Amino acid sequence: MRFDPPDDPSDYPYVHPVRVRFCETDAMAVVHHAAYLAYLEESRVAYLRALGHPYDEVRAGGVEFPVLEVAVSYRRPLRFDDLVDVHVALTSARAATFQMDYLLRARDRAETCATAVTVHAVVDSQGRAARVPAWLRALPRSAEAQKD
Amino acid sequence: MRFDPPDDPSDYPYVHPVRVRFCETDAMAVVHHAAYLAYLEESRVAYLRALGHPYDEVRAGGVEFPVLEVAVSYRRPLRFDDLVDVHVALTSARAATFQMDYLLRARDRAETCATAVTVHAVVDSQGRAARVPAWLRALPRSAEAQKD
Amino acid sequence: MRFDPPDDPSDYPYVHPVRVRFCETDAMAVVHHAAYLAYLEESRVAYLRALGHPYDEVRAGGVEFPVLEVAVSYRRPLRFDDLVDVHVALTSARAATFQMDYLLRARDRAETCATAVTVHAVVDSQGRAARVPAWLRALPRSAEAQKD
Amino acid sequence: MRFDPPDDPSDYPYVHPVRVRFCETDAMAVVHHAAYLAYLEESRVAYLRALGHPYDEVRAGGVEFPVLEVAVSYRRPLRFDDLVDVHVALTSARAATFQMDYLLRARDRAETCATAVTVHAVVDSQGRAARVPAWLRALPRSAEAQKD
Repeated sequence: MRFDPPDDPSDYPYVHPVRVRFCETDAMAVVHHAAYLAYLEESRVAYLRALGHPYDEVRAGGVEFPVLEVAVSYRRPLRFDDLVDVHVALTSARAATFQMDYLLRARDRAETCATAVTVHAVVDSQGRAARVPAWLRALPRSAEAQKD
Repeated sequence: MRFDPPDDPSDYPYVHPVRVRFCETDAMAVVHHAAYLAYLEESRVAYLRALGHPYDEVRAGGVEFPVLEVAVSYRRPLRFDDLVDVHVALTSARAATFQMDYLLRARDRAETCATAVTVHAVVDSQGRAARVPAWLRALPRSAEAQKD
Repeated sequence: MRFDPPDDPSDYPYVHPVRVRFCETDAMAVVHHAAYLAYLEESRVAYLRALGHPYDEVRAGGVEFPVLEVAVSYRRPLRFDDLVDVHVALTSARAATFQMDYLLRARDRAETCATAVTVHAVVDSQGRAARVPAWLRALPRSAEAQKD
Repeated sequence: MRFDPPDDPSDYPYVHPVRVRFCETDAMAVVHHAAYLAYLEESRVAYLRALGHPYDEVRAGGVEFPVLEVAVSYRRPLRFDDLVDVHVALTSARAATFQMDYLLRARDRAETCATAVTVHAVVDSQGRAARVPAWLRALPRSAEAQKD
């Protein structure tokens, strides 16, 4: 894993809004750190849907994208009822794995709340390694956007 | 508690869509029964926001609506990526408590997936009983709608 | 469903301790109401294991006990790090469904924190109604204990 | 963050057992990747309790250990009802932050299921940086254990 998600929203091709649920807060009155993984997943799935590849159809087609690694850097707290913009980008793809970058910003505050990375395997229904689909490999990447 | 939430969406004044997250499914490949409580809460909070009384402002104003009782009847399973219409209505209000009814239907299936009820106290910041706000008491009620 | 779980721990044949996790608290600094459903489930599964019928073996044997209905009455809050005694009892069994009662008490406070009921179907691997197993039907019941 | 948690249980001074809940599984019939963060937290809190510093007393004493960074490497799936040994160790401590390493192994399988790292700040009740407590700084470290 390379942990280097850009802080600039314009480096990401897709953004998905998530509204913080009360049940996701904890006794420190901020969003619990584990809830961010649900936000990443929801946003990744929304991105796939927007690309014309809903994840339930991907699964019905015989492949899954299990999470191999996850890393999150928590910079500023999220709070109940915050509307959070989760920016998503493909970072890189290998033969049978790919990495995605994430940037989380509360909509009413122009600052980074968190950055994150997930690394996924591509496996068939028996759990064997499968090739990263061509449509996924062809996606715009945060690393490329960064260079421009 | 009176458990009698109507099965007819037109008996409810408000509806809020919730998309099922992958993390809310379980090893039976359906939505886990505990996840429904998060859907009820998100939809109740969305209803308050639509009424001009966001729950974070209600809390900042010094009152909270803790859950005293909850009941859910699971009729047909929800699945990953389902778009669920959660219909919400005030059922009744007393001096310091109120009840809400819920009807959950997957958007692509014209049938009841679940019905539910929550009973709430109104308390101040010290946890003492407080009066149900007038704006909440004045809401349209599922029970009344049913009678018409 | 009949909601009448006894308040007396001695009316229950089994008790399972659950330690409250920090992630289960919310911004009111108490356990979020949805977390109780996980406590009921963990305690029900522990009871089955203690009876010699671990739920993963029950499932491997071709039947499941999906939740048809759940109801919880929240009486006093639970807090982070509380050790909660979850008392469990079979309430009643019909041909293809059964009901369980629950009493939750924080160990350091001799008072009821919550009571709850779950109603379960018995289904085979195709989701068709199946008979309640004889060993389950033979369990001691909270209602009977109450009468003595 | 340095991600290098040892694979050898003997490199860790503390181990805490966690039983997988059914609600923590997902539609792939394995434990959802977000549930691991709850396991890390529960085990970290159990370690503090075993050290004579229960986290609720730490918090009552005016300091908190919010999570700044988390990383998990998922190696082999965990399943419903698995008894998971979560090994915990302090990795390093600076003036106002510290890092912990984790190794997760299902008890009936002598292999690594996951490794993880959390980085924590020490903050006072106003959220200002505070010093890592002396008792925490003095804990045995996984990195040192590794060298022996």
